[in-house]
Amino acid sequence: MFEIIGERINTSRKLVQAAVSHRDSDYIIDDVKKQQAAGATFIDVNAGARIGHEEEDMRWLLDTIQPVCEIPLALDSPDPAILEMAFAMVEKPPMINSISLEKERFDAMMPFLNAKDCKVIALCMDDAGMPESAGDILARAKTLVEELNKIGIPTANIYVDPLVQPISTDSNKGVMVLDAVRAIKAEFPEVHITGGLSNISYGLPERHIINRTFVTLMMDAGMDSAIIDPLDNKIMSTIRTADMLLGHDQFCMKYLKCVRSGTIKS
Amino acid sequence: MFEIIGERINTSRKLVQAAVSHRDSDYIIDDVKKQQAAGATFIDVNAGARIGHEEEDMRWLLDTIQPVCEIPLALDSPDPAILEMAFAMVEKPPMINSISLEKERFDAMMPFLNAKDCKVIALCMDDAGMPESAGDILARAKTLVEELNKIGIPTANIYVDPLVQPISTDSNKGVMVLDAVRAIKAEFPEVHITGGLSNISYGLPERHIINRTFVTLMMDAGMDSAIIDPLDNKIMSTIRTADMLLGHDQFCMKYLKCVRSGTIKS
Repeated sequence: MFEIIGERINTSRKLVQAAVSHRDSDYIIDDVKKQQAAGATFIDVNAGARIGHEEEDMRWLLDTIQPVCEIPLALDSPDPAILEMAFAMVEKPPMINSISLEKERFDAMMPFLNAKDCKVIALCMDDAGMPESAGDILARAKTLVEELNKIGIPTANIYVDPLVQPISTDSNKGVMVLDAVRAIKAEFPEVHITGGLSNISYGLPERHIINRTFVTLMMDAGMDSAIIDPLDNKIMSTIRTADMLLGHDQFCMKYLKCVRSGTIKS
Repeated sequence: MFEIIGERINTSRKLVQAAVSHRDSDYIIDDVKKQQAAGATFIDVNAGARIGHEEEDMRWLLDTIQPVCEIPLALDSPDPAILEMAFAMVEKPPMINSISLEKERFDAMMPFLNAKDCKVIALCMDDAGMPESAGDILARAKTLVEELNKIGIPTANIYVDPLVQPISTDSNKGVMVLDAVRAIKAEFPEVHITGGLSNISYGLPERHIINRTFVTLMMDAGMDSAIIDPLDNKIMSTIRTADMLLGHDQFCMKYLKCVRSGTIKS
């Protein structure tokens, strides 16, 4: 089953920031419920945008969300101290968003993740920056999987993010990441592939059709999770449809259910 | 480059049938010009629907279309005698639509195709009916390629149609044809893959999203041609976008041109 990491609870979004700063729990609860109803399998929580308030905002968000949330949370911060604090607050084993190969982040994250019961998003980013080739992405994924395995995180709990880059900067950026995903899945069949998708269309017009065509290609390559807005009907319709076409929807039951509920539209 | 076999000139379509029976050349010419402008690379011509009139209708259509058509024609009939007559009338080497492994058709087509300068659509159909597995499709494609090679048709002139079947009848029908296309391209890298697409969504609601998601998957597997309506903006938008994402559109120039001309819309 394709996993949807619902990205809406993020203080970089204006209305969420307003709700968080006014401690408007109704707004947050309503948004979380909508994401769940739309098919989210994780709720991402990012409280990083109000500088100097991340810890208190994250605490308040977790206190607000957990009583109404039936699915696990994805704890989202670049700061390992915030993730550690948040981890101690959650009831269900969470997803940690994220570790990378940037030395400072990596060194701070590994002790924190050691032997923890959680899922981990592993970004193929290092101190040299974004990866430059499919081989580069694969090499970084391999290091991340091996290092995480060493501290007791099983491969099936690792969500590699190959870092989608804009095709407007280089016509080869689509094929590069698709090849990388195929190579990673060939080497580590149990690993999950996740990430944001909309970077692919950065700088181009009519971005929706690029994003939905790209998620289809990524799913074909082996992506089985994405960090998206579950209330975006266009991308969700495409994901449901691709899942059916790729043989993951017996008798087309899930597809038909989504059509009936109005969430799949041509 | 993805090749578009424009399917509109077919007497099974009501308005075309009316135009053909009234010898309304303006209608036909206008339609052909629209298909060319929309990016068709072949114009399919099928005069089969007016029983007893196929020969005269095909002659009239070819006389009408050729003076205004800058691209090759795809001569479309189950009757080898009609194809032979039409072949003698065309100025540019045509595409022949189609041969199959059904014995009667095969035996009548092979002498006609022998050493001809043309492209050939080869359907993976035999007297047992539709193929039942990816291996079955591959085996039929292999026989078709080998037999056509023997009579001097090079592999690069063969357009294998793996025969898309409705996913509503079996959740595996999508994966079956995708696997088959990958296997055929692995065995015969030069062969083209073509076909109609809309069968995949037969019997299901919201067919457009299924068709456009499916063409994306098929292109990823190796399909490089399709028999479609070039005036269907939704499917054409997806094909242009997938072509870009698969690395066939340097600097996104073709994509941007289509957006500017209004033919790509999210």
